[in-house]
Amino acid sequence: MDMRLPRQPVFAQLSARYRDVRRHSLLLAEPLTDEDCGAQSMPDASPIKWHLAHTTWFFETFILERMEAGFQPFHPAFRVLFNSYYNGIGEKHPRAQRGLLTRPAMAQVRAYRADVDARVARLLAGELDAGQRGQLETLIALGLEHEQQHQELMLTDVKHLLAQSALLPAYLDAPAPVAALAPPLSWLGFDGGLTAIGYDGEGFCFDNELPRHKQYVAPFQLASRLVTNGEYQAFIAAGGYFNAALWLAEGWDWVRSQNLKCPIYWQQDDNGDWREFTLRGARALDPNLPVTHLSLFEADAYAHWAGARLPTEAEWEFAAAQAPIETGELHPAGAGASVGGGLLQMFGHCWQWTSSSYSPYPGYQTAPGALGEYNGKFMLNQYVLRGSSCATPAGHARASYRNFFPAGARWQFTGIRLARQA
Amino acid sequence: MDMRLPRQPVFAQLSARYRDVRRHSLLLAEPLTDEDCGAQSMPDASPIKWHLAHTTWFFETFILERMEAGFQPFHPAFRVLFNSYYNGIGEKHPRAQRGLLTRPAMAQVRAYRADVDARVARLLAGELDAGQRGQLETLIALGLEHEQQHQELMLTDVKHLLAQSALLPAYLDAPAPVAALAPPLSWLGFDGGLTAIGYDGEGFCFDNELPRHKQYVAPFQLASRLVTNGEYQAFIAAGGYFNAALWLAEGWDWVRSQNLKCPIYWQQDDNGDWREFTLRGARALDPNLPVTHLSLFEADAYAHWAGARLPTEAEWEFAAAQAPIETGELHPAGAGASVGGGLLQMFGHCWQWTSSSYSPYPGYQTAPGALGEYNGKFMLNQYVLRGSSCATPAGHARASYRNFFPAGARWQFTGIRLARQA
Amino acid sequence: MDMRLPRQPVFAQLSARYRDVRRHSLLLAEPLTDEDCGAQSMPDASPIKWHLAHTTWFFETFILERMEAGFQPFHPAFRVLFNSYYNGIGEKHPRAQRGLLTRPAMAQVRAYRADVDARVARLLAGELDAGQRGQLETLIALGLEHEQQHQELMLTDVKHLLAQSALLPAYLDAPAPVAALAPPLSWLGFDGGLTAIGYDGEGFCFDNELPRHKQYVAPFQLASRLVTNGEYQAFIAAGGYFNAALWLAEGWDWVRSQNLKCPIYWQQDDNGDWREFTLRGARALDPNLPVTHLSLFEADAYAHWAGARLPTEAEWEFAAAQAPIETGELHPAGAGASVGGGLLQMFGHCWQWTSSSYSPYPGYQTAPGALGEYNGKFMLNQYVLRGSSCATPAGHARASYRNFFPAGARWQFTGIRLARQA
Amino acid sequence: MDMRLPRQPVFAQLSARYRDVRRHSLLLAEPLTDEDCGAQSMPDASPIKWHLAHTTWFFETFILERMEAGFQPFHPAFRVLFNSYYNGIGEKHPRAQRGLLTRPAMAQVRAYRADVDARVARLLAGELDAGQRGQLETLIALGLEHEQQHQELMLTDVKHLLAQSALLPAYLDAPAPVAALAPPLSWLGFDGGLTAIGYDGEGFCFDNELPRHKQYVAPFQLASRLVTNGEYQAFIAAGGYFNAALWLAEGWDWVRSQNLKCPIYWQQDDNGDWREFTLRGARALDPNLPVTHLSLFEADAYAHWAGARLPTEAEWEFAAAQAPIETGELHPAGAGASVGGGLLQMFGHCWQWTSSSYSPYPGYQTAPGALGEYNGKFMLNQYVLRGSSCATPAGHARASYRNFFPAGARWQFTGIRLARQA
Repeated sequence: MDMRLPRQPVFAQLSARYRDVRRHSLLLAEPLTDEDCGAQSMPDASPIKWHLAHTTWFFETFILERMEAGFQPFHPAFRVLFNSYYNGIGEKHPRAQRGLLTRPAMAQVRAYRADVDARVARLLAGELDAGQRGQLETLIALGLEHEQQHQELMLTDVKHLLAQSALLPAYLDAPAPVAALAPPLSWLGFDGGLTAIGYDGEGFCFDNELPRHKQYVAPFQLASRLVTNGEYQAFIAAGGYFNAALWLAEGWDWVRSQNLKCPIYWQQDDNGDWREFTLRGARALDPNLPVTHLSLFEADAYAHWAGARLPTEAEWEFAAAQAPIETGELHPAGAGASVGGGLLQMFGHCWQWTSSSYSPYPGYQTAPGALGEYNGKFMLNQYVLRGSSCATPAGHARASYRNFFPAGARWQFTGIRLARQA
Repeated sequence: MDMRLPRQPVFAQLSARYRDVRRHSLLLAEPLTDEDCGAQSMPDASPIKWHLAHTTWFFETFILERMEAGFQPFHPAFRVLFNSYYNGIGEKHPRAQRGLLTRPAMAQVRAYRADVDARVARLLAGELDAGQRGQLETLIALGLEHEQQHQELMLTDVKHLLAQSALLPAYLDAPAPVAALAPPLSWLGFDGGLTAIGYDGEGFCFDNELPRHKQYVAPFQLASRLVTNGEYQAFIAAGGYFNAALWLAEGWDWVRSQNLKCPIYWQQDDNGDWREFTLRGARALDPNLPVTHLSLFEADAYAHWAGARLPTEAEWEFAAAQAPIETGELHPAGAGASVGGGLLQMFGHCWQWTSSSYSPYPGYQTAPGALGEYNGKFMLNQYVLRGSSCATPAGHARASYRNFFPAGARWQFTGIRLARQA
Repeated sequence: MDMRLPRQPVFAQLSARYRDVRRHSLLLAEPLTDEDCGAQSMPDASPIKWHLAHTTWFFETFILERMEAGFQPFHPAFRVLFNSYYNGIGEKHPRAQRGLLTRPAMAQVRAYRADVDARVARLLAGELDAGQRGQLETLIALGLEHEQQHQELMLTDVKHLLAQSALLPAYLDAPAPVAALAPPLSWLGFDGGLTAIGYDGEGFCFDNELPRHKQYVAPFQLASRLVTNGEYQAFIAAGGYFNAALWLAEGWDWVRSQNLKCPIYWQQDDNGDWREFTLRGARALDPNLPVTHLSLFEADAYAHWAGARLPTEAEWEFAAAQAPIETGELHPAGAGASVGGGLLQMFGHCWQWTSSSYSPYPGYQTAPGALGEYNGKFMLNQYVLRGSSCATPAGHARASYRNFFPAGARWQFTGIRLARQA
Repeated sequence: MDMRLPRQPVFAQLSARYRDVRRHSLLLAEPLTDEDCGAQSMPDASPIKWHLAHTTWFFETFILERMEAGFQPFHPAFRVLFNSYYNGIGEKHPRAQRGLLTRPAMAQVRAYRADVDARVARLLAGELDAGQRGQLETLIALGLEHEQQHQELMLTDVKHLLAQSALLPAYLDAPAPVAALAPPLSWLGFDGGLTAIGYDGEGFCFDNELPRHKQYVAPFQLASRLVTNGEYQAFIAAGGYFNAALWLAEGWDWVRSQNLKCPIYWQQDDNGDWREFTLRGARALDPNLPVTHLSLFEADAYAHWAGARLPTEAEWEFAAAQAPIETGELHPAGAGASVGGGLLQMFGHCWQWTSSSYSPYPGYQTAPGALGEYNGKFMLNQYVLRGSSCATPAGHARASYRNFFPAGARWQFTGIRLARQA
């Protein structure tokens, strides 16, 4: 998380942002029943109710517990129930059993949110010295960014849950926009050289984006847009899922041991036509939309088949410097709808797998105490994704942002940006 | 299930019984929220909502689909979603993922129950020839007994679910009755001889209780009551869970690989005092109550330690001929509260593990079609339990009843009746 | 094991038998290299070298350690390395890692055998009082029967090992006898009644065959011979491995999760012709030979398909009273080569699965001390096989013998004797 | 592998080197029995016999099969039996079952080696045009480097095997040299800057060392020697294995799920004194020797505890430019015995974990055909180790060499070189 203080602490702005972000989480739960909000479809995903409680726990544990006079927990058991992975805080309810927490009920979790929000508001309105003020602003900023990360997970986790039922219920029963014809994929060249990556602005960033540091990048090319469903169909039709030569060794074990034949939310109907499950329900696969929900294994095999490769995170960040930041809605949109002249679909559609393992930047420092567990301890056997997706909340994306998942993860909105040597 | 026709088909009685049994299932769900009703704590257990829907599916699939004119399913997907294990019916929703069925909602499942109940009532009120009438009565009788089996599971499954949370919520917030001092355990002798076991009455029985057949039983003795918590504490204190000589080989692997030290719902507090989680909440362990929720492994090891053994199912049934049938409530009661002069606690407290593997009686016949999958295909690697428990619905117990579970099952109300050679 | 003393203790006879049995184990290893003798193909099987050492360990631990003056172990580590499952003796080398014991070498194990044999011979030739003499005779008799059990396992374990290699090496490069046409399968009726089963002779028996006890057996019929390869091919051709209705629930999971389509040592060549791997090498499947190496799941499914069932162990023992005991060689022979008028192939061809779970006879007693672990602790989730096989050593078979394996075991010479109600 | 031709093709030299390398593999097997050579202690390790055959298979498959006139395989089944992971070659014997290949016997594998060696020698002595000559030299060079990699594995695999037995047999019964007092650990500074890494010499290198490319390295410091057993004991004594804050998240799961408390070959005797199993047998732990056989998880946790970090591979290679290359023998030696003034123990003692994930260098190219599977497909979820170990054959080490293993691997001679920011 950010260890820098905001340059101009304006509490009024922060309060407004606090209300907006917190309200958005509840809005995301609106289309769902309390029953929907309680279930957990796999250990990697969490129930919506748990997300709503855990993001609140974050404010209660890291802010109220430290800074509120006469702190009393909303409920003494919540410290354990809604701890995600902070060993420094103590015990944790087992991750794979979050769906068994039928108590507290959704109504009680809403009450928990309201209570913590009121207490945070009191803290913000109270008297603080400069040091406390700075600490409070820093922690609230971090808590809000943390909550925005969970807002994206709420959409991807509930999509995974809804897909488990033969009923294939839609999250939102809205018609899908019609996609324009995808423009041809072209290659844009970049000179690279001795450059610098990492965050360098005035606002918030996470600790894993720091420090900004020099990195030499050789000349390279990036594809002008994301790979489409239509292009990915061609890979399938060419036997891509059954050709060992295209896959990393671990990817080949992965794909064959599960007998995979297509992306996770694709299904072939009795006529052989592909259908895709989306947050707006199941529908015919649109060849002009970006292919999404791919593992790194699939993305890498496709790139190999296409005679290209995945970009490194330094290449991606270097190229993204001027790309406009778009915000999406529930599903990636076609490249024709993307803004900007050169590189299309850099933000707001699909996270883009890079070939870079998630590792600390030179000189990386973790925060002291339990908050130091935020990022550093996950820097192993995970790979960096860049950009943002159609599920990323507005205001949460930037060129230096480092998302990360294990190579087999498929339930995020992940896609393919091809690269090649210049 | 029963292949015999009721002797005096009295539709009015059957209709009343249908209403009573069906209403009882809903009553069992009363103390629970819709969220509680959706969760599944392990693959062996099912959500309450699933029980409510599956028991309805049974009537819809085996009665309405066969006998209703112009049959239309309540919802076409339910045939798959709520099929438990009938391969003859077709596809099944995966057992371990029943907790992911947030749709249909509880309200829709209640509507499903009401709809099927109305259609069954119409069928019962309609014109039927004698053959149809007999078939309908037979199938309804079977469906109600099936539902009563699920009523017991509803209580044991929800107990297991509630026990997963650090909050340890009670199913019913009622005070537990105070148990009287357990009477001393005495031994009652039985001569045995060439006898017969299996159902031989006028009413309903399951197919696995048939045919009644001759079996030679050597003289034996049975303990007058169930083993108590206090006696089982002595086994624990004597190191019973760490003494290989007491355990079956598979039991020893089971107990050590999971590092077990006590029954599933027991916990030792910081003072070393034992507490027990019950449907009425957690409370101090009462040494006068029967020990319950034991695996066969634990029951057998205890019997070995006590210099006794478990009874065979033939011994148990032979001895139970005259025992009064009691009905319990939410937790086993002490022997002082049990009725009958000689053998106490035979029914209504704890299912009693026998040393008999669950296998077909000589001449056993399965029903034709999918209903034939009801019992026979499970006759392997399971062991017979006799009696009934505090969770068994009134009217569902009899001396010839054969319950069965794998040796490691602990979430049922299972206890120990000791036996020994005469 | 037998707790009875031989009626006429004749040491000279016992010494001769000791030499014969012990020599036979070494003869079984003759066709194998030292490398063959060290490998372990699965946790259930053991290396030949381990069998040779463990059977010796049995004599050293249960006889020399107790009765030899000034006992010194041959090697102090062997007590752990070659303990199979006796918790009462202490630590054990992990079962699944027996193939990693490249030390001691085969030569050292041969030396171990010679040393223990010499010391046992000295003990037999020395001065003993009547009590010691009786104990020694009892223990030697038990040790020899134990070694004969391992002689059968040596053949089945090495067969499993050799089958793992694409080279499919033969244990013995001998031509297979030509099988005569199998006689038609006919049904023989038995009246049953209140009879007795269990050992009742003058010689040795294992503890699990005792006590002889009364059992009521209803009238039944047994097939005149074992099921043949040709008959089993018809079951396969009829889709038997893909018809859920024929299988026990656990069997269906077993067969589908492993995608099984035929017995373990069968393979279909490119022309669709079946070949069978035998101890004499791979060869065309002979339709007149008994089908062998079946799990209980397969045997039960076949019986179901054939409109019959498996016998109980009481039925089998009752019928076998007059059947002649044959001794086989390396592979089951055809029924035409079997002796006796009525029931053919009861002994010396295939162990015959029964529907009886392996459980203690009424009044069963285990021996005191570690030897008490011999049989009783395995009486759970295993099923009884009766008869004997082509791998059973001469003199080891009798009508009351109870062999037992879990329902999924396929590497023993197991076959099908059909039964049905009279 | 190397796609460059040797600059001065001198066949006589190549032939001599071929003989030397091939003979060395057999020398490594000298202290072992044929039984030792056949066993496989875990799926990651292979039997010595398999190593001897597979390295021969490499020459037969990639050289003789392509270039020998009238090629006939030594044995047709060997193509499958001894294929390691080349999907392009076809079927493979299952990796975890290499220990079941008791046939071919060791004697036959020796004959296989002699036969292939003779045929390669004939090829080298025959008439070849310049293109063939170049290809042959390239492939032989690759085959020899490949065999040297397996020579290291032969020692680490057999060490793992021997450690499985309670007998703890030594590979060589030789006395261990006495280690001098370890010199104090000091820090050496390096300026870094825009530098280049990757191979740039005249000789052989693997494809993963290419292409040499620019990389910016910030100023850093390296420890003067490897971490010692004594220093690692202090980490253990300080509770290092039980302090979540020191470990990567995946490392913490790893260490706790296996309940690890020390390096793999360490054992504490009854007095609490540490002993270490080595190729020369078990002996008292020497605090002056480098700690070895650590996973990346352990190395990283130690570095964290010591207030340092692991180096990146670029830092390591930059610093190693001038370090002398030592060759070790069976166990890492103390730093006092290491040569060179500044950085001690860079080569010949322990492979040194880096924080760099194993990934392709910019512009990395795989070879065409099956040989292209040599390195690239493993570039995921593995981490780079630099230097060389006491088991690396003479002539096989260089500064640009990239060894790689998953983070949990412990059976290689792996140790810790600390780094920190300048």
